[in-house]
Amino acid sequence: MIITLKKTAPEAEVSRLIENLEKKGLKTTKIVGENYDVFGLVGDTSVIDDRSLLANPIVYDVKRVAQPYKLANRMFHPEDTIVDVNGLKIGGSKVIMMAGPCAVENRESILSAARAVKDAGADMLRGGAYKPRTSPYAFQGLGTQGIELLTEARRETGLPVVTELMSADKLDEFVENVDIIQIGARNMQNFDLLKAVGRTKKPVLLKRGLANTIEEWIMAAEYIMSEGNPNVIFCERGIRTFEKFTRNTLDLSVIPIIKERTHLPIVIDPSHATGDWKLVEAVSLAAIAAGADGLIIEVHCDPQNALSDGAQSLKPENYASLVEKGRKIAEVIGRSL
Amino acid sequence: MIITLKKTAPEAEVSRLIENLEKKGLKTTKIVGENYDVFGLVGDTSVIDDRSLLANPIVYDVKRVAQPYKLANRMFHPEDTIVDVNGLKIGGSKVIMMAGPCAVENRESILSAARAVKDAGADMLRGGAYKPRTSPYAFQGLGTQGIELLTEARRETGLPVVTELMSADKLDEFVENVDIIQIGARNMQNFDLLKAVGRTKKPVLLKRGLANTIEEWIMAAEYIMSEGNPNVIFCERGIRTFEKFTRNTLDLSVIPIIKERTHLPIVIDPSHATGDWKLVEAVSLAAIAAGADGLIIEVHCDPQNALSDGAQSLKPENYASLVEKGRKIAEVIGRSL
Amino acid sequence: MIITLKKTAPEAEVSRLIENLEKKGLKTTKIVGENYDVFGLVGDTSVIDDRSLLANPIVYDVKRVAQPYKLANRMFHPEDTIVDVNGLKIGGSKVIMMAGPCAVENRESILSAARAVKDAGADMLRGGAYKPRTSPYAFQGLGTQGIELLTEARRETGLPVVTELMSADKLDEFVENVDIIQIGARNMQNFDLLKAVGRTKKPVLLKRGLANTIEEWIMAAEYIMSEGNPNVIFCERGIRTFEKFTRNTLDLSVIPIIKERTHLPIVIDPSHATGDWKLVEAVSLAAIAAGADGLIIEVHCDPQNALSDGAQSLKPENYASLVEKGRKIAEVIGRSL
Amino acid sequence: MIITLKKTAPEAEVSRLIENLEKKGLKTTKIVGENYDVFGLVGDTSVIDDRSLLANPIVYDVKRVAQPYKLANRMFHPEDTIVDVNGLKIGGSKVIMMAGPCAVENRESILSAARAVKDAGADMLRGGAYKPRTSPYAFQGLGTQGIELLTEARRETGLPVVTELMSADKLDEFVENVDIIQIGARNMQNFDLLKAVGRTKKPVLLKRGLANTIEEWIMAAEYIMSEGNPNVIFCERGIRTFEKFTRNTLDLSVIPIIKERTHLPIVIDPSHATGDWKLVEAVSLAAIAAGADGLIIEVHCDPQNALSDGAQSLKPENYASLVEKGRKIAEVIGRSL
Repeated sequence: MIITLKKTAPEAEVSRLIENLEKKGLKTTKIVGENYDVFGLVGDTSVIDDRSLLANPIVYDVKRVAQPYKLANRMFHPEDTIVDVNGLKIGGSKVIMMAGPCAVENRESILSAARAVKDAGADMLRGGAYKPRTSPYAFQGLGTQGIELLTEARRETGLPVVTELMSADKLDEFVENVDIIQIGARNMQNFDLLKAVGRTKKPVLLKRGLANTIEEWIMAAEYIMSEGNPNVIFCERGIRTFEKFTRNTLDLSVIPIIKERTHLPIVIDPSHATGDWKLVEAVSLAAIAAGADGLIIEVHCDPQNALSDGAQSLKPENYASLVEKGRKIAEVIGRSL
Repeated sequence: MIITLKKTAPEAEVSRLIENLEKKGLKTTKIVGENYDVFGLVGDTSVIDDRSLLANPIVYDVKRVAQPYKLANRMFHPEDTIVDVNGLKIGGSKVIMMAGPCAVENRESILSAARAVKDAGADMLRGGAYKPRTSPYAFQGLGTQGIELLTEARRETGLPVVTELMSADKLDEFVENVDIIQIGARNMQNFDLLKAVGRTKKPVLLKRGLANTIEEWIMAAEYIMSEGNPNVIFCERGIRTFEKFTRNTLDLSVIPIIKERTHLPIVIDPSHATGDWKLVEAVSLAAIAAGADGLIIEVHCDPQNALSDGAQSLKPENYASLVEKGRKIAEVIGRSL
Repeated sequence: MIITLKKTAPEAEVSRLIENLEKKGLKTTKIVGENYDVFGLVGDTSVIDDRSLLANPIVYDVKRVAQPYKLANRMFHPEDTIVDVNGLKIGGSKVIMMAGPCAVENRESILSAARAVKDAGADMLRGGAYKPRTSPYAFQGLGTQGIELLTEARRETGLPVVTELMSADKLDEFVENVDIIQIGARNMQNFDLLKAVGRTKKPVLLKRGLANTIEEWIMAAEYIMSEGNPNVIFCERGIRTFEKFTRNTLDLSVIPIIKERTHLPIVIDPSHATGDWKLVEAVSLAAIAAGADGLIIEVHCDPQNALSDGAQSLKPENYASLVEKGRKIAEVIGRSL
Repeated sequence: MIITLKKTAPEAEVSRLIENLEKKGLKTTKIVGENYDVFGLVGDTSVIDDRSLLANPIVYDVKRVAQPYKLANRMFHPEDTIVDVNGLKIGGSKVIMMAGPCAVENRESILSAARAVKDAGADMLRGGAYKPRTSPYAFQGLGTQGIELLTEARRETGLPVVTELMSADKLDEFVENVDIIQIGARNMQNFDLLKAVGRTKKPVLLKRGLANTIEEWIMAAEYIMSEGNPNVIFCERGIRTFEKFTRNTLDLSVIPIIKERTHLPIVIDPSHATGDWKLVEAVSLAAIAAGADGLIIEVHCDPQNALSDGAQSLKPENYASLVEKGRKIAEVIGRSL
């Protein structure tokens, strides 16, 4: 940890600050500069709150050197984590394809979507039973009935299912019936929910929040891991920026960044990132080329009559074509799909 | 609702779309343009999902004319809502001052802070018992013990208390012990939590999310109101932007905007907005001048030893000075404080 | 154009507004809604300033239906524009590789970089002679001497050169010596400079501004084209967002968007987008997969001693490896490189 | 300057780096940490390019301690700079009111606007003769004729004029005829233009760029000052964010920040910041309360027929009312207006 003090700081106050820090077991080294003096602190700096140091008027700046995450940190866990979803490996050489409708709407539509994405080459089925909607007047999902329909679709197709958990009081239902629990973008910093899924061993698909930094996102994974669940899969779905042409702004450089900083797999959601089915194929191929461990894509047999997000849903035939092209890209970079 | 169709759309598909819309009870009017044709839809357009319309390749654009919120909408409720907190009126002519530490840390510190802000002229006491922290390794708040200390501070000083609820399973504790339930920025779109507080009659301080639009914020209020609780108070605390000099970016024009679009009161949080106690006074006076109904400000008797957010906490003497200046500004614009 | 009026608007004022609009030659159609009335305007709406309409208190909203750009618009020019740079075709089936140092630093370094990128497979040489630097105390480029060194490098290697023009008073020097004139991100809305390059026939590489929308970017191209120069090549280099892990945030979905909305080629700059050479390869492969017409990449023989942007410069051997991988991706999607 | 090295860095490479730095005259101090080693560099670090250090694979992070600006820095120039505009003092105790139309449209409109704002209490006249417009098809300003009309309005009313310079080739015209030269937001990093106005002694109103950080903004002032012109006035006009309800997002905390970091005056432009005349009064009063040295506000006698930006222009009677209220706020905080 590096603390910068103003040159004008009274000697006595500097001494008091340094003594306090040393009392907490830290070793300090002083670097005398022209306009500022810098102190390096070595030891367990997690006992110190940066922002309380800043409350001291003689302190000009405080910077942590080390990353605040430990369990997710590649530095302390150099080998890749591969998350096992009933035998399906996420984070290995195969690019995993998750697909299905935004929401589970009814029996027929989820079953036909499940069959269609399976035929097109998908590895997993997605579909929302509990839906976070901006408006209280919009379709809120089928709830428990939606979960049952997902399990029926799994029985029929053999595809494991991933679906979003919005509230910890449904956790048992999810642990029993679902293969991957998704934490949605809006709940990325719902810390009680993170702790709850952390107390299970279920794989968790952790979406990045609308406007959360990469570091905050890794810290959300750390919340889950620190409760004992190591099976975290990152999922990038774009961030909110000034540009409104697309629903969100998707920066694929998060893929190599997450892989450098952590040992966990990362999946891309081009549907929410772009909000426009016409852009999904280009972005999906790009994500594979950039090294994504998987893609989660919205597919609907009748997008014009979808109850939510029709605009960003691919038809099965377009999804099948994407899978085929994606497979060739994957092979070029030494992976399968 | 306005739908723009591409001029190249085949006649038959246009007819099919229009028929579908009319079957849903909508009246359509066509405006023939040079490169696009526009259809106006009149009637109950809430039965239509915009994004499913966009899934139709002949559709170029869809725009809603009316606001999606009803209960919060000034148009249907022209007079101001004044929220009554045990006799304290929020949204009336008095600017309400809420103050206290970021977190309840221990008995002595919360009691001394409560006395200090009361002496300085505060109307309410703030203090977090359950703390949303980016790191799982940071101080997470005292929980139930923190709530008990807040009620003790209220008994002693008479100041009503406002504190953050992070999880619906603590709702009863809050309804019983707290005067205003705060929904934090990170939970602004935790829809299950919004519905839960909506089923009580407790006043709710609804913080704006880190990167939520004004419309999404009003829709979050609509969630609470649509469950039966009309006592919503907006609280702006800055949004996340590219500028990192301040913790967040605070645009005070939300005050007249919220007042034009809704009938609900709005309070400003200059502490989280700036993240720097040295900036709090200037921003607080500005907020009063712009018409805020209240201010919620972090005050700590010993910021350098605060367990969280010391950097943005005022000392009691600086808070007292701010209150005094704020009072003069309030008087100039015809309010009291 | 669609104008929304408040239902409370006095009849007389509505009539006055409509009469005014009809006097300007526009045909109006009224759609009576529940809370608002909507008027569609058909005709040459370019005579109307949207924001003056909004000054009228009875007007609630104004929306243009048609895009504000004409010459760049795919709708009026369906076939792709291929920009010819002395025989090198940009926008055709070949992905064009531009590479070289951030700045021209001295004779030896630019010549060795030129040879290295040529050997690695580059089609063009980049290098800044006039450098826009945030600090007046930073290296500002060699100016005219830099241009001369670029032309010397071209003579030796045969690679055409692209370099940035910062001020119209150097235009003649650029027209005479340079193959593509680059307009930098900071000058994307320097309209006098856009008009100046528009009066030549030189190909222009138009970088997107730090925080400019896609529409503003296309309008900047329209400035150049409306002066008579059709040879515009878009260059995306990332936008500024809250995320600071990378220098900028690069959304590759601009590639299909630009191709749908305009007929002009688009090139990606992964070096400025990421600011980190370790991320450049992943992003470059992704850009090719997403359909980019070219890449402009910083390559330096000795990045640790570069006078600017060493952190984002590839060494020649890493660039060569990128070109090789990129070629395979290009082939998979039916292009060459 | 603080350099953080990875613990895994080979001894020999660390030595080479340190030797190199010491050769450049810097003194280094090493702080051995657990996972990283930190080196503090003392001396003239302006000879070092941060981003070239980052090109070295053993370097994990580089941070500058000192601010990169010198002439604008409050640390080296503790007393306030007061800019003298023909006797009008900007940066003193009086809040300076600049007002007038967005653009000079014709003789009658600029003269009537000048009279109206003078009557309402304005100190200076604003009005654009050269207009930066997003579209090449929009009104581009009257140019030289507009400058002449401004000087005529000055003769009649005695109000000094401020207007925007877009291109250095008009500099003589501005030096001769204009009282303050405005550098617009889109040209904040047009460094050749900054250097050109820096070579005069004319006061410069330097608008903040759409998405420029406070530090970049101060560095733009440094460009002007480093050429010899100390008369820089900052002008904040809001930044671009995800929120589109207002034209821009205005954070008034820049006022105390600019005053802490620099010795230069700062003026607020609530018209461009909000883009909506209905919001201008609230924001203006807030700006005065927060300590602004002046306001620049768009006023038009007939906003509905303005050639640009009618939506954000106040009518003279509303401006007069704002001035009156602003005066009371100014008095409360110990200033005049």
